[in-house]
This record gives sequence, structure tokens and C-alpha cells, in this order.
Amino acid sequence: MTDTRFDVLGIGNAIVDVIAEASDDFIVEQKLDKGTMRLIDEAEASRLYGAMGPGTEVSGGSAANTIAGVAGLGGRACYVGRVHDDELGDVFAHDIRAQGVSFTTPVATDGPLTARCLVLVTPDAQRTMNTYLGACVHLSAADLDLEAVAASRAVYLEGYLWDAPEGPEIFAQAAQAAARAGHEVVMTLSDPFCVDRHRDSFLPFIREHVDILFANEHEVMSLYLAGTFDEAAHRASEDVRIAALTRSEKGSVIVAGSGRTEVAAHPTRVVDTTGAGDLYAAGFLYGHATGASLERAARIGSVCAAEVISHIGARPRANLRSLVAETLG
Amino acid sequence: MTDTRFDVLGIGNAIVDVIAEASDDFIVEQKLDKGTMRLIDEAEASRLYGAMGPGTEVSGGSAANTIAGVAGLGGRACYVGRVHDDELGDVFAHDIRAQGVSFTTPVATDGPLTARCLVLVTPDAQRTMNTYLGACVHLSAADLDLEAVAASRAVYLEGYLWDAPEGPEIFAQAAQAAARAGHEVVMTLSDPFCVDRHRDSFLPFIREHVDILFANEHEVMSLYLAGTFDEAAHRASEDVRIAALTRSEKGSVIVAGSGRTEVAAHPTRVVDTTGAGDLYAAGFLYGHATGASLERAARIGSVCAAEVISHIGARPRANLRSLVAETLG
Repeated sequence: MTDTRFDVLGIGNAIVDVIAEASDDFIVEQKLDKGTMRLIDEAEASRLYGAMGPGTEVSGGSAANTIAGVAGLGGRACYVGRVHDDELGDVFAHDIRAQGVSFTTPVATDGPLTARCLVLVTPDAQRTMNTYLGACVHLSAADLDLEAVAASRAVYLEGYLWDAPEGPEIFAQAAQAAARAGHEVVMTLSDPFCVDRHRDSFLPFIREHVDILFANEHEVMSLYLAGTFDEAAHRASEDVRIAALTRSEKGSVIVAGSGRTEVAAHPTRVVDTTGAGDLYAAGFLYGHATGASLERAARIGSVCAAEVISHIGARPRANLRSLVAETLG
Repeated sequence: MTDTRFDVLGIGNAIVDVIAEASDDFIVEQKLDKGTMRLIDEAEASRLYGAMGPGTEVSGGSAANTIAGVAGLGGRACYVGRVHDDELGDVFAHDIRAQGVSFTTPVATDGPLTARCLVLVTPDAQRTMNTYLGACVHLSAADLDLEAVAASRAVYLEGYLWDAPEGPEIFAQAAQAAARAGHEVVMTLSDPFCVDRHRDSFLPFIREHVDILFANEHEVMSLYLAGTFDEAAHRASEDVRIAALTRSEKGSVIVAGSGRTEVAAHPTRVVDTTGAGDLYAAGFLYGHATGASLERAARIGSVCAAEVISHIGARPRANLRSLVAETLG
């Protein structure tokens, strides 16, 4: 293993979230599938925005949330993603850099505006996401700093990026650069519908390249078209070295070879579940990078996930480093 | 009194707030005066934004917050203020319309971008505001729909607008249109430093035009250069028909002629005091417009203020109408 500059380098869709409260009736009227993410075009983004309530704008993007969390824990973190040279692009770049993350991907000066995700939070704290990918779809393999990838202990790949035309090529190059440097390749499945769109290319990629896989129970069951969670977990254990599988209030299960570790969810008052999986991954990866056991890494993940679901927005508000020290010692 | 289309029409600076947590040390390092608002230019806005932590973007603007609150209570509300044709301008327009407010001020297509206020929230929940007025300063008297002003039971004027070149002219025209229609002129003093900048023009304007004055204790003491709150309250009672004076956790005092009503603050866990005065005014004005006594109007104001300080951001999140009904019956 060569010297490293970063603990984790994340690659994903660079998105600003527009979060609004919504009633269950609104979700039904708009024919949305509660709790999932769907891709929308600019016209639908404009129409839905016009119909939804007042919002709050907060930087988001799944891998970006994770990377912000890694930095908040004290990890050395780098992010790769494409924004446009516009006001929301400035917001995204400011927020991730202000968290201490290295972010140097070239900014788009033509083409679509910075991506936004219209997040509708229902009274049960579930989030229903409607993403206009905007500038994200122009992230190209040429934007990837392979030297930075090779200088990271782990590269973290967001399944959602597969929706961008060059996403698969970017992932392949990143995985190869990490492997050549002897570093870990980590992937999150992102969303059950994302798995559905890309199952046939996800599976060979995971088997060939991925060391650590993050997924929730719906995503991993979708990946393997498995009838039960245990079947899916077993299949995952055959394909990757470590699979960290989250189950909402039931906590998480980590399978590694024939080993299985279960960790309870950290109790909190749930306000908005957006970012739960992203921050779990942040805590787990930070723990893993700093030599924690799988069980302790999962516990750090649970504490981080609990923090982010206790308020609106998918980026941590508390000082995660202090929070973990106070909670887990 | 003619028929009305609106309960309240508010005129003010149309601003998007960029809210970030900050330490007391940061406030000291940046030589800021905690708890106040200062005006900054574009270069300073860019510099300070670069130095501050990750933010949350939420529509703000003092009168706009009040008007959003009036609409949230079920009142008929209209807002006048200037944004630019940019992404934050879209956010501002969406948020206020989504709250049910009529907002038809022409949007600027050249000149500075939409105004933003960099709000630093310290651990004591105080907010220190740094406002780049941007497009606001180009609000002109020609933008004011005097027919809409005349069709409003009350016109609500934000002291901050005096910082815009045509602010005083806009206020004079609005006050005259309201008076001709037999409707009320309401003004908020906004901020002690704003009072300091404009005391010599505020006083004659208030004496000539204002029926209802909102101020916190610092602002009203600054207006009259009074040594005590009681002295300032007495002076206000000579100048306006009703003065609603807020005193943070000590509640509010309403003076009307020789009458004096005191109302306690509504208890809550304070997270971010941004918008407390704005939402107090919203509740008071809504109560007043719907025939409530001064005491009940002040109680509605206190409930609305308590809601907005219990979370980040200066716009209400709860359904204010239901909240007031549940709390006050």
C-alpha cells in the first residue's frame, strides 16, 4: 500500500436538496412512490416545485453526504462530482469545502444547471425524492483525478452515478486505479429502483471490483432478486469481502465471509430520514479507516445516522467527532 | 373603509437567508457585533461566506417572514419586494407564493443578484446577520401597486427598506395610499442600528403616518434615545395609536394611549432566534385584523414567535393556524 492523502474519496451526483414538508395526500395526488427516489426532467422539476410547499435548500447528494460525514468525524476526505457555475453550484461547493473536504472537480460553464433534488418529507419522516440531474450527467471520466483516487485508502462509489452516461466508465477507471494502489473499492447501492435500473451491470461490477458494499435491506434484496433478507445477505457475503446492510430501526447487519455482526440502531427522535444510509456509511468507513472492528465501525455508523435523521437535511449538524466520542467513548 | 382584498400588504427587502452555526470565537475573530444586522457589499459577502461553515438556505426578509406568517395563520396577504431573475430569486418567489401570499413585484433582469443574508447562529441561539442587499436596492416606487395597497386593511413597512435608495419614497406613497383608503399604516423598526442610521427620518414619518409600531426594547430605546424602556414606551404611546414592544424572554408590552397590556413570552426550547420579532408581528397583525383584543393579538404573536425560534430559519414550519387554535383555543 502506498502513502495516502485521503481516507476516503467519494464520487457521485453533486446535488442541492430542496426539502419541503408534504402531506400523505400530496404524495398520492402527485402519484409518487413514497420513500423512493425517481429521476425527473427539467419540466417536471419546474412543475413539481410549483406544486410543493415552501422549502429549505441544503447541500445533498448521497456520496457527498457521506464524504461530508467522514470529514466531520475527522477523516481526510475528497469528493468528485459536477456542478454548474451558478448559485446552487456555489452553495454546493461552499458547503462541502466548509466541512473540510477537498473538492476540485471542474465546474460546468455551459449545459444544464446544478442538480437539485425535490425532497418531500411526510409526517412519518419518510422522504420521497425527485431528482433533476442537471449538470451531474456531464461528469466525465476526464474529470476524475486518478492520482487522487490512488492516494485514497478507499474510493466510495455511489450507485446513483450509474444514471450519468459516463458513470460506469468513471467507476471502472476509479476501481482499477484503487486496486492498482492496493486500496479498497466501496460501493453503495443507493436505492432499490436504482438497483432495478442497473442490476445487470451492478452485479458483474460488484463481483469483480467491490470490497465493501453498503445497502439497505430493500436494495440488497433487489440486487439478488432474493425472497428474504437472509438469502440476500448470504449472496452478498459470497460476492464482497464486507457487506454492511442497514435495516432502518432494526439496526444493521455486517456480513464478512462466514462472520455476521448485528448492531442495533441508535435511538433518536426521527424528523427526516434523508441521509440515514449516507451517514451510516460515513461512520462505518471512518471507523474502518481508523482501524476499528466491524462492530465498532457499525456503531459509529449508527450514531452518525441517528444524528442526521434527528433534523431536516442530509448533512450532519452536530460535531460528529465529539458526538461519537461522547456516545461510544 | 372600502372593501379589502388583503388583510396585510408588506413591503420590504426580499432576501434569502444563508444560515450557519458559528462559535462565539468566530464572531469575535470576524469582529462582528453579536445579535445585530449589518449591511455588507458583494466582496465582503463573498469573503465572509468563504470563511463560514456549511449553510442552509431558507427564504427570509423581515417583512416577508411576517407576511408568510400572516398567510400561514389564514390571513389574506400580499408582499412587495425585489428579487433578481436568478436561482435564489426563484427560491424566494416560490417559497412566499407556496405559503399562499400574492407576490407580483417585477423581477430584476439586470443589476445585482438576489439579496442574501449570511446568518451566523451561535450556541446561545442568537443570530448575527450580514446582509448583502443586492437586487433589493433597486425596488422603486414605480413597482408599488398602490391599488393593492389601498385594498389592504393594513400596510406593513419594514424599517430595513429605508436602506434602499427609494425606500423613504416608497413608504411615503404607501402610507398616503393607505390613509386615503382609511386603512392602517404599520411599521417595524427592524434593528437598533437601522434605527440609528435613520432616526431623524423615522421619527417624523412615524408621527405623521404610523398607526401601529412594532419594536423590540433596544430599538424603541434607540428611537427615542431613552434611558429606560418605560420612558421609551411612554414616548411611543404619544406618537402612535398602538405600540407593540417585544422584550425577548420577558414577553411583550402593548401601549395604546394610556392603556398598557403585558403578555408573557410563550415557552419553548430556543434553537435560533431569527424571525422572532417578524413572527410576533405576524400573529399580532392577524389577530388585530380579525378583531381580537390587543391582549389576544399579542398572545397569538407570542405563540408564532415561539414556533419560529424552536427551529432553524425565520419562516414558520408548523401549521400556525392549527397551532394557535390548539394553544389558545
